[in-house]
Amino acid sequence: MTADFLLINPNGAIPVLVTPSKQILTQSLAILEWIEESYPQNATLPPGPEPRAAVRAIALAILSGIQPLQNLCVLNKISADHGEAFKMPWGKFWIEDGFAGLEVLLQQHSGKYCVGDTFTLADMCLVPQVYNALRFDVDVGKYPTIFRIYALANQHPAVVSSRPEAMVDAPKELPK
Amino acid sequence: MTADFLLINPNGAIPVLVTPSKQILTQSLAILEWIEESYPQNATLPPGPEPRAAVRAIALAILSGIQPLQNLCVLNKISADHGEAFKMPWGKFWIEDGFAGLEVLLQQHSGKYCVGDTFTLADMCLVPQVYNALRFDVDVGKYPTIFRIYALANQHPAVVSSRPEAMVDAPKELPK
Repeated sequence: MTADFLLINPNGAIPVLVTPSKQILTQSLAILEWIEESYPQNATLPPGPEPRAAVRAIALAILSGIQPLQNLCVLNKISADHGEAFKMPWGKFWIEDGFAGLEVLLQQHSGKYCVGDTFTLADMCLVPQVYNALRFDVDVGKYPTIFRIYALANQHPAVVSSRPEAMVDAPKELPK
Repeated sequence: MTADFLLINPNGAIPVLVTPSKQILTQSLAILEWIEESYPQNATLPPGPEPRAAVRAIALAILSGIQPLQNLCVLNKISADHGEAFKMPWGKFWIEDGFAGLEVLLQQHSGKYCVGDTFTLADMCLVPQVYNALRFDVDVGKYPTIFRIYALANQHPAVVSSRPEAMVDAPKELPK
């Protein structure tokens, strides 16, 4: 991490978005909601409070329920406290634990995508989480709804153009 | 957990809200956003995309960045894998790690409350997290902004009436 980045976000965490009015926004879902409110012509939340709640519940099941437990700083803490051998099993355990609940939630709400037949903010959260799950060798077959939706959402043009590998400054080898 | 509850939420997770139209909502922030959209007369988000993003970033720094790492199922997993002695230090470590970033975020945005001088959704998330931090013996003095806001928000009538101890079915001793 460079000193320049710490001037933008003193916490050193990503993602960060700098708005046209030079406000610095943090936390991925807060940034997505800001984009939603600022550019409503490209809606990623459906109309109606209940479908919106379903989209947000799926997003948060990932962003609060799975991602934090298997991110790099937590894996490094497990490794430092108990040894490298515990790192990957820890991450896999929490992804599988979270996917069991997420599978049920998606069975209740999904159509072609996470909620109904339209690509939403929930699908935007699902794709990188499944991408991570594959790196942890999670068994695809145990979560048919999750992987059915992932297979479709992963081909959405917005997803294809924002894959890590598509970024000009992506490292050739992604760290585990 | 009773079988009745599993009929309402197959995941067995709380909180759950059943709407007047019998929709079952999960995930605390999704429920709070649903309340915000359904009952706009009691706003807990400020007007304007940037202040709203600040409120949501603070809420998510807690709900995605701190709470998941120190909740009961994670503490139980640490205890089962490595022994009871690792449980409380793990929880305290992640609360202090998260509070360091949260303190900076609140220095940037706070007035009397987390964002400006009005009680918002961010304060609703701050109070129970600080309540938890006190149970983990986190040093109050290291996070002056967090504890200044907590002291005020904890006296807000909405907070007073919703404390765990104020619930008719609260156990006399809260589990650690």
